[in-house]
Amino acid sequence: MIYPRVALIGLGLIASSMAHAMRAAGMTSEIVGYAKSPETRAVAKDLFCDRVTETAAEAVKGADLVVLAVPVGAMGAIAEEIAPHLKRGAVVTDVGSVKQAVVDAVAPNLPKGVHFIPGHPLAGTEYSGPRSGFATLFHNRWWLLTPLPDTDAKALAGLKDFLVSLGANVDEMDVERHDLVLAVVSHTPHLIAYTMVGVADHMRRVSAQEVIKYSASGFRDFTRIAASDPTMWRDVFLTNKDAVLDILGRFHEELFVLQRAIRMGDGEHLHAYFTRTREIRRGIIEAGQDTAAPDFGRAAKPVGKA
Amino acid sequence: MIYPRVALIGLGLIASSMAHAMRAAGMTSEIVGYAKSPETRAVAKDLFCDRVTETAAEAVKGADLVVLAVPVGAMGAIAEEIAPHLKRGAVVTDVGSVKQAVVDAVAPNLPKGVHFIPGHPLAGTEYSGPRSGFATLFHNRWWLLTPLPDTDAKALAGLKDFLVSLGANVDEMDVERHDLVLAVVSHTPHLIAYTMVGVADHMRRVSAQEVIKYSASGFRDFTRIAASDPTMWRDVFLTNKDAVLDILGRFHEELFVLQRAIRMGDGEHLHAYFTRTREIRRGIIEAGQDTAAPDFGRAAKPVGKA
Repeated sequence: MIYPRVALIGLGLIASSMAHAMRAAGMTSEIVGYAKSPETRAVAKDLFCDRVTETAAEAVKGADLVVLAVPVGAMGAIAEEIAPHLKRGAVVTDVGSVKQAVVDAVAPNLPKGVHFIPGHPLAGTEYSGPRSGFATLFHNRWWLLTPLPDTDAKALAGLKDFLVSLGANVDEMDVERHDLVLAVVSHTPHLIAYTMVGVADHMRRVSAQEVIKYSASGFRDFTRIAASDPTMWRDVFLTNKDAVLDILGRFHEELFVLQRAIRMGDGEHLHAYFTRTREIRRGIIEAGQDTAAPDFGRAAKPVGKA
Repeated sequence: MIYPRVALIGLGLIASSMAHAMRAAGMTSEIVGYAKSPETRAVAKDLFCDRVTETAAEAVKGADLVVLAVPVGAMGAIAEEIAPHLKRGAVVTDVGSVKQAVVDAVAPNLPKGVHFIPGHPLAGTEYSGPRSGFATLFHNRWWLLTPLPDTDAKALAGLKDFLVSLGANVDEMDVERHDLVLAVVSHTPHLIAYTMVGVADHMRRVSAQEVIKYSASGFRDFTRIAASDPTMWRDVFLTNKDAVLDILGRFHEELFVLQRAIRMGDGEHLHAYFTRTREIRRGIIEAGQDTAAPDFGRAAKPVGKA
């Protein structure tokens, strides 16, 4: 057993999935949980925590691993609160989608003798909260660690082993690079999905009530992404501002060029662009990062009221 | 049997799915097919056509139903070619994603005594070509018909019955309204997905090779949409130009407001926006237009090399 006692601070999708995965893998640690909301704590106690506490400070006492699984904007205050109560030699990690902001908020607060190793599981669904977790969430998904210059090699190796036993593939990455890459593959796509859904929602209210009825023609994929947790995503955009604004700038440029091609009737440009983007999908399927089934496999088993 | 002989002009995803659905429903029509490419014709003959012909004119001879399933930009020329060979009383429909442009290109070419009823199945996957069809593609999906002022009521009722027996839900819609609603729920989302994938592809080449590896964090959903048939989509944007440019204008406005909120650190605005968009997803699931399973059900059965 790598960590006889694990403290989960924040009990949403990621923390609950970690708990379920630990149990599924037969890792017999004691799982202690804390969340701000008493209701969330009660659900967690019921579903996956051995014990819940009324403060984060209480939860981390004696813990060998502490997982910060709160929105990025809440990390600093939590780190400050738990710092005096951490066990010497404990490993502290987080699961935030942005890394530089978490390092800045958490690292200065932690005492010497505690190993802080920032992390980010590239896994999730559009659901949130303590009931949304499941044991296989991390299977074949990447879990990025962004160790700091003074990270202890043994502590790092132990955390890696732990994450692998949850089913994840672990990779190391530089903090700054992480925030840029994630702005491309996750943050900006989410913002764009939120925007497109916002536009459609507005159209629906004023003139095109059919938006929901006819959503299967492409739009519904955007709505899944745009159903993600608002607090988590607010914090992502506020804390990875520079990288997101950079990628958004590129996005506007590209979109304006395509928009101009539409206006000018430049079919050649459009066709060449749409052909190139097809390639990248193939790469993702070959890399095992998505299903090759048509329509994510939805089409084979129709949903709803049919 | 509503149509003893059906001619499919164009033998891609939609036409092949129609053929499979007809057979699955025990509709014993003769299915005659035509496609420009000899290779496509050979595959179609093998998989789902009773007969293929070397010209569209030949295919429509004696057909009771003619389905134009070619890219929107090719509809006019096909209509011109087949017009002299259509059987009196035949029903001609199409499956184009844009309706005004198809009406303009096809209707003036068709002779009197033939019933032209424009249509559009809101169904598809990211795959194309004669091997991509399957019998359940239209199950619980909407098939929009946009009848013209002089459309014969009996011909319309017959086509509806036929489409229902393919598994579709049939709705009637005004031509202009169709093109606006589809610009919102389908055309603009596709353009945006193509653009985001283009940006990521460019980043991948110049600096962030990890784009494919880490695509599971949101981006891969966009790549599915952006893997759709380039010719079909080029024609959609060229022929539904006004509505797409209108919706794109709204999209830019919304995105700039969100971008400004990020730059200014206006978390309240972001949170409120992300909360509103969540609602629309619920509406889609309640309307039976998407699965409620997390991550479209992908997460439950991990894919790839795990």
